[in-house]
Amino acid sequence: MFESAELGHTIDKKTFKAEVQVLREALLEAQFDLREKGRFQVLVLISGVDGAGKGETINELYSWMDPRYLSTPAFAAAPTEEEAAHPFMWRFWQVLPPKGRMAVFSGSWYSTPIQRRIAGELGQAMFDQRIDQINRFEAMLANEGALILKFWFHLTKEDQKKRFKALEKDPRTAWRVTSASWDSLKTRDKLQDVASHLLRLTNTPWAPWIVVGSADDRYRSLTVGKLILDALQKRLANPRELEYPVAPPLSHRNGARDVLTALDINQSLARKTYQLRLARAQGRLSEFARAPEFKQRSLILVFEGADAAGKGGSIRRLVAALDARQYQIVPIAAPTQEELAQPYLWRFWRHVPKNGRVTIFDRSWYGRVLVERVEGFCSEADWLRAYAEINDFEHELRQDGAIILKFWLQISKDEQLRRFKEREDTAFKRYKITDEDWRNREKWDAYHQAVCDMVERTSTGLIPWTLVEANDKYFARVKVLETVCDKLEASLGETGNYASGRKYNAPRR
Amino acid sequence: MFESAELGHTIDKKTFKAEVQVLREALLEAQFDLREKGRFQVLVLISGVDGAGKGETINELYSWMDPRYLSTPAFAAAPTEEEAAHPFMWRFWQVLPPKGRMAVFSGSWYSTPIQRRIAGELGQAMFDQRIDQINRFEAMLANEGALILKFWFHLTKEDQKKRFKALEKDPRTAWRVTSASWDSLKTRDKLQDVASHLLRLTNTPWAPWIVVGSADDRYRSLTVGKLILDALQKRLANPRELEYPVAPPLSHRNGARDVLTALDINQSLARKTYQLRLARAQGRLSEFARAPEFKQRSLILVFEGADAAGKGGSIRRLVAALDARQYQIVPIAAPTQEELAQPYLWRFWRHVPKNGRVTIFDRSWYGRVLVERVEGFCSEADWLRAYAEINDFEHELRQDGAIILKFWLQISKDEQLRRFKEREDTAFKRYKITDEDWRNREKWDAYHQAVCDMVERTSTGLIPWTLVEANDKYFARVKVLETVCDKLEASLGETGNYASGRKYNAPRR
Repeated sequence: MFESAELGHTIDKKTFKAEVQVLREALLEAQFDLREKGRFQVLVLISGVDGAGKGETINELYSWMDPRYLSTPAFAAAPTEEEAAHPFMWRFWQVLPPKGRMAVFSGSWYSTPIQRRIAGELGQAMFDQRIDQINRFEAMLANEGALILKFWFHLTKEDQKKRFKALEKDPRTAWRVTSASWDSLKTRDKLQDVASHLLRLTNTPWAPWIVVGSADDRYRSLTVGKLILDALQKRLANPRELEYPVAPPLSHRNGARDVLTALDINQSLARKTYQLRLARAQGRLSEFARAPEFKQRSLILVFEGADAAGKGGSIRRLVAALDARQYQIVPIAAPTQEELAQPYLWRFWRHVPKNGRVTIFDRSWYGRVLVERVEGFCSEADWLRAYAEINDFEHELRQDGAIILKFWLQISKDEQLRRFKEREDTAFKRYKITDEDWRNREKWDAYHQAVCDMVERTSTGLIPWTLVEANDKYFARVKVLETVCDKLEASLGETGNYASGRKYNAPRR
Repeated sequence: MFESAELGHTIDKKTFKAEVQVLREALLEAQFDLREKGRFQVLVLISGVDGAGKGETINELYSWMDPRYLSTPAFAAAPTEEEAAHPFMWRFWQVLPPKGRMAVFSGSWYSTPIQRRIAGELGQAMFDQRIDQINRFEAMLANEGALILKFWFHLTKEDQKKRFKALEKDPRTAWRVTSASWDSLKTRDKLQDVASHLLRLTNTPWAPWIVVGSADDRYRSLTVGKLILDALQKRLANPRELEYPVAPPLSHRNGARDVLTALDINQSLARKTYQLRLARAQGRLSEFARAPEFKQRSLILVFEGADAAGKGGSIRRLVAALDARQYQIVPIAAPTQEELAQPYLWRFWRHVPKNGRVTIFDRSWYGRVLVERVEGFCSEADWLRAYAEINDFEHELRQDGAIILKFWLQISKDEQLRRFKEREDTAFKRYKITDEDWRNREKWDAYHQAVCDMVERTSTGLIPWTLVEANDKYFARVKVLETVCDKLEASLGETGNYASGRKYNAPRR
């Protein structure tokens, strides 16, 4: 979820100046159209970690747009007397912009629940109750026509520290760093957990979250400005279009740098090292799989990757360490007639492992947002809603005790070509290469985009994607096996904080 | 919510036989079409109180339809070993009908959460978490094309007892009444509370609940059969129509008997009695309004009723007991330009009272599902979603400590005519009668239906409607005032079980 926001996007001063000039004009024009003919209001929520530059970006927006038609509701941490005497949501209703206007919320209906969750005053279930209320509230606003954009400003811990120090140094900004700022670093990990859960459950089609890497002031403000402009223009052009206020691909936003290109895919291992580490990992894995704790858990492994990325080879090295009675490999191809007659996730639910078992998916439910998206096998609405459905699905399995790992094996286009040719030349591998593989290759860029979006939307705090640099098969296999072992080691030590699913299962008294 | 199910609908044997003959043929035909060209599956959930005849109705459905293409997943109270070893939802995925088929669920994903909530094993927040999961699950099914119908079989406590006794008497059915059946009577009130909350929050457009009064076997089964048929035919005729599987008006289903016609609107009071009881109620009210406990609560009174039903008169008698600084009367007419520029509920949020205050709405947010529905001022989709939005709104106010009463003043069409004429004849009342009043009168039946639906969908366990028999003004005014007093007396005694809203408001530490 935060992967692409941690890539360190920056924009140089010159580009920024040039782009702002264009953006500014377009924003003013869109704002004018909104006032003249826009029968809707715009709500922009700016949230995120402390010190990420929320105030700076809001000030930039004010300098780019006509401030007479903007408002910035702000809320003190402690409610005013008037607010305290009214229901919680009352304060937000007071400041809703009328149709034709835009409000940029610094602090919103998200602030209090997040703070109270971090402070431990709200339990998980109470927090989820608030989340449901928020979703219903935002759905109502969207149904009433409001355009809602929610930005989450993200910083790595290091960047956060750097920013505080920089602010403290400058006498003009030193006042903004308080002891509360430094305190916020202590609860940062907790905030990340809470935010990751919150963003997953409130990332609705009608009020989507956009995570913005915020270390660079220019990149952050420009990104926000551009996305507001896009959404505004899209809605003004098509007033009946209530869904999907922002263009679907939310990742991979700044030129060539994205979660895939950021990988050093040529990392390699010498044969000797490979053999040694592989054997060691297989040994660990075989022990974990026979551990008594595992009898109450299950393991689900998902392998995705381009054709010839090495999924099969990794899976073979993995199962070599397991008892054949304990695991099942489920290769996912085009759905059968029987499967087509059921909801999309049905075919995967069939193979969910029992406790004590392992299921390995060679390709998986992610087909919906990869091949089905790219090939147009399902509608845009279908694959867009699939992100949330997949997240729900995986979190439900996890809540029940399943340990889930997801691997994306990344190879270069050249490496794929090399492997294709090798397969054609090797008699016993020839069956592995088909015309379809060559066709898929032509859509390399579309798949690339789809993978970036997939990681952005479905790599959650609890169930992250592991991106595997796979040009070197040795390196890839060892990384896969060692990741599985590390995860098992950590998970089998957990004492039942996954247990709420279990309780759900409890027999009636 | 359960009002119209408690009207004691019955169907005589002869009508039943005749209707079943027609229904059966149509059902078989629809089932055939579903198989041949229906690219969707049908999920019928049968839930409700014990002894309401769930089994009987399912058996009737089997006898009416082609059982080869029906299935009835049943789940034991305690999960099987296989079920327990899998995630909770796994068992339901196993039995989903494929496209073209229908499954009638006796027991479903609702059963366990309800049981555990009643047994006190699930707190309110955990329960709401489950509800959210269920909504997401059903939304996914509906998005995948499934047609979902959820029936709640309702019985009054007396009817429930009667049914148990009747079953026990008959040797063929005696086995079905166990000690658990009689035990269920003890937790019945709790079940009603839980069900009312659950039905409100899971009554989605894509998977609506239909509450069926179940004391009469013939009425219950026939109603279910007809509604399944309606929904099936509607979807078969319009395969792309995912929303609103059942026709919007869900109340008032059996001939002339509904919550309004069931009222004895001619109840009256002698002038002397009226004066005495009115004075007493006003005295009580004035004390309650000055009670120290009231400083932490607020009072919201909603008055709805046909033109000349006596709303103004009741309100005047009511405020006579209050300090003018303490209350505000908000007459709701057509929205202003400013109000039109905001989401529908905004104009009402503006007038939400502070603690210690009273707001009286002379007409209210219910305009959306009354005048706006009947006059076509908003789209069907708008007023259909308004029921849930209104319920959310009122429950949010209540959670914050507001005491809410809603009055519908019911007069007969003749009485309205008499009052209209009287007004025209009385100089100082002439301003009260306009052409519009005469026009509204022509839509009497449409309003009647809209009121029945409104009561069915928005009279919840915590915030019920009070239907006031209002042909006699004395009777109506006294009923209104005494109801307000009784409710205040009961509510001011509560010790903060409304307080979760308050806590939400707590300042950050």
